Amino acid sequence: MTMRIAIIGAGPSGLAQLRAFQSAHTQGAAMPEVVCFEKQEDWGGMWNYTWRTGLDQHGEPVHGSMYRYLWSNGPKECLEFADYSFDEHFDQPISSYPPREVLWDYIQGRVKKAGVRDYIRFNTAVKNVSFDESSKQFTVTAHDYALDENICQQFDYVVVASGHFSTPNVPDFAGFERFEGRILHAHDFREATEFKDKDLLIIGSSYSAEDIGSQCYKYGARSITSSYRTQPMGYKWPKGWEERPQLSKVEGDMAYFIDDSSKRVDAIILCTGYQHHFPFLEEPLRLKTDNRLWPLSLYQGVVWTDNPQLIYLGMQDQWYSFNMFDAQAWFARDYMLGRIALPSKAAMEADNASWRAREESLETAEQMYQFQGSYIKHLIDQTDYPSFDIDAVNTIFLQWKTDKKQDIMGYRDKSYRSVMTGTHAVPHHTRWLKAMDDSMQEYLRETNSKAKVATL
Amino acid sequence: MTMRIAIIGAGPSGLAQLRAFQSAHTQGAAMPEVVCFEKQEDWGGMWNYTWRTGLDQHGEPVHGSMYRYLWSNGPKECLEFADYSFDEHFDQPISSYPPREVLWDYIQGRVKKAGVRDYIRFNTAVKNVSFDESSKQFTVTAHDYALDENICQQFDYVVVASGHFSTPNVPDFAGFERFEGRILHAHDFREATEFKDKDLLIIGSSYSAEDIGSQCYKYGARSITSSYRTQPMGYKWPKGWEERPQLSKVEGDMAYFIDDSSKRVDAIILCTGYQHHFPFLEEPLRLKTDNRLWPLSLYQGVVWTDNPQLIYLGMQDQWYSFNMFDAQAWFARDYMLGRIALPSKAAMEADNASWRAREESLETAEQMYQFQGSYIKHLIDQTDYPSFDIDAVNTIFLQWKTDKKQDIMGYRDKSYRSVMTGTHAVPHHTRWLKAMDDSMQEYLRETNSKAKVATL
Repeated sequence: MTMRIAIIGAGPSGLAQLRAFQSAHTQGAAMPEVVCFEKQEDWGGMWNYTWRTGLDQHGEPVHGSMYRYLWSNGPKECLEFADYSFDEHFDQPISSYPPREVLWDYIQGRVKKAGVRDYIRFNTAVKNVSFDESSKQFTVTAHDYALDENICQQFDYVVVASGHFSTPNVPDFAGFERFEGRILHAHDFREATEFKDKDLLIIGSSYSAEDIGSQCYKYGARSITSSYRTQPMGYKWPKGWEERPQLSKVEGDMAYFIDDSSKRVDAIILCTGYQHHFPFLEEPLRLKTDNRLWPLSLYQGVVWTDNPQLIYLGMQDQWYSFNMFDAQAWFARDYMLGRIALPSKAAMEADNASWRAREESLETAEQMYQFQGSYIKHLIDQTDYPSFDIDAVNTIFLQWKTDKKQDIMGYRDKSYRSVMTGTHAVPHHTRWLKAMDDSMQEYLRETNSKAKVATL
Repeated sequence: MTMRIAIIGAGPSGLAQLRAFQSAHTQGAAMPEVVCFEKQEDWGGMWNYTWRTGLDQHGEPVHGSMYRYLWSNGPKECLEFADYSFDEHFDQPISSYPPREVLWDYIQGRVKKAGVRDYIRFNTAVKNVSFDESSKQFTVTAHDYALDENICQQFDYVVVASGHFSTPNVPDFAGFERFEGRILHAHDFREATEFKDKDLLIIGSSYSAEDIGSQCYKYGARSITSSYRTQPMGYKWPKGWEERPQLSKVEGDMAYFIDDSSKRVDAIILCTGYQHHFPFLEEPLRLKTDNRLWPLSLYQGVVWTDNPQLIYLGMQDQWYSFNMFDAQAWFARDYMLGRIALPSKAAMEADNASWRAREESLETAEQMYQFQGSYIKHLIDQTDYPSFDIDAVNTIFLQWKTDKKQDIMGYRDKSYRSVMTGTHAVPHHTRWLKAMDDSMQEYLRETNSKAKVATL
């Protein structure tokens, strides 16, 4: 009987898994019966922007945390697919920090070329996944909102590719229930122009805080106050942005911090992270972890050691992203196809413990992305995913960190060289801080005319 | 064996069911084993205000659609409990349109007196309800977030009291994905002060549109434009509020309507209603209905005809509210206790068809609340719930409609006489339009001093 595989989610990880199987298939491997369940109407996961927040048209929690005017906050050279370059997709050099729509287009380009869209069942939310010990089969129950009916199917493997930036971690602070203004989590942030001329309080000091604050500054917020728990972000912030220690309470429209300072604010954005949340899996199948480089219970970062028919993709804290999901998906594919054998459960756990010990010894950011790079290299060495120069990517991460430190509002104007193709990115026609239109049309505009000039 | 009953939700309907059983118990009836599952940390359902929107601290959809500064939009004399008067609770006359916190306190007063809190399992979200045909038992699976564990229990009856104003109905309009400003559903509306000095577009023409618009006007919105689909609300709006026909599209920050008019707006609030949404019930147990006075499949408006061990409370479109839930809960109680027998399924369906036919013949608002009043009277006639003068309540509804028509920004300053106690409400110390502080402390302040003066 043909092997049956369910993939939950058609974002970058789920699409990587589809592409991995299709790639093996073009080289002669049998294609398993794959059903990729996608709650949204289109693919791309987080990169498929929606204006919706809270609950969607079907009463399902909105998956997306994507906001308008988002530009990549890391160089595209660090996330490039090894089997589908930016050059192949755009046929011309582009800048190193493209806006959301451009990256979405790139993600789609590969899977359109691979022709895997028919494996995806859109508008279909997985509601329950159970495992039967006697038949060794999963039962996946999902609701198809196009047909408005429940479906129930059996699978040999389930690949959880639903991401971990969709369920917000939302702390409470004293006085929130009477704060005079909007309080939202980054998950529900969509439109910086709402905060034009406003005094904004941002809780948190990680990527969301840095990027949402920067974007609101760019689109005209009057002031940004960001509050950290352990240590300030420490960038050279522009005039009007200051860092404060932890919030102690709000009263009316006043925010009070633990250093006894205070600030009047119009709105509060909680950039307080996300939960690994899998309500659709039966309890014993759920990964429970904080956001870190080496979650336990996943052999090679992907195979659920308690039940190796269950796979998780992309559940790590992410320096690397798209190409890490690829490396994982190729490994998972070869394991499911029987090309890679698993050791005993004890050996898997020992292996995990050794990675975890290494992870716990990490101190600097540089050590962290090097650790993740070595993990990816370790995966790629076991499959036919195209090898690439991970040391060179690590060097780009290092340069990126330096560029940010030098100029947090200007680092996106820098360019780097692709380790896949050797192409050096071109500067965008407009500095990021002045580029208000984030559409792909606007993004490719001048680059197009330049390209034309070059060919004259 | 003792009968086991699950109640889903500890809002006004679920609390009515608890109070109904406790009332029978004080008169000698055996108390069944009742577990009331409540997702939130406290009781009161919608009246338990939360600043949260979207997903809560556990990743569960936020139940509440309640916003700050909400004052009852109907006279309290129309929703008064027949077994627990406002006089008993407050020990002094209060105004006819109290703010949210005051009504919450009133709801709590009765159930505190009844001592039913121990029946409620808080922080526990029902995830699945299934029915086994052979054992004739329900299995309720829930997640207890305090213990972070799944629980699974069997019940003879399940009472669905989870309300139908929690899952927003969220339509899309052309251009929403590029609108330059906030778009939210009424479900996520919390704080009118966010819209001070803003030009606001409200989509819809029912209670949410009228009340959220009025509140934003009260708290300083620059303009309100409300867009209707079928017909305008037609109130005498204050300067700065105008009604437009249906929205056709938005572009940038411009809204265009089907009469070719346009308006620049800062934010859009979708007051487009709610869905009857029961994702925690297995498919065949789900009530599917639009918001109307007589949903089908519910005998006497409460007993699921396909499986009479399943009860729904409060699923009707609501003119009457708290005392209707009571009438339903008392009927459901007596049915579960075996004091009321059901007719055959065919007879139940014929009865439903006859109510539905009556419902479909209704044309005016007056006919509608009279219809609902006669339904409540019909229920009360079958139980020991204290009878009350429903014709007199209908007269208050009529007066309320007239008062609104005369002065949409002033109707909350009117007072009516309780049909339960004969007490005439007193005017609030501050006109609604000027009463910016909605706390119970502020609300009871001057009334207290008045009361003291009166007793001197």
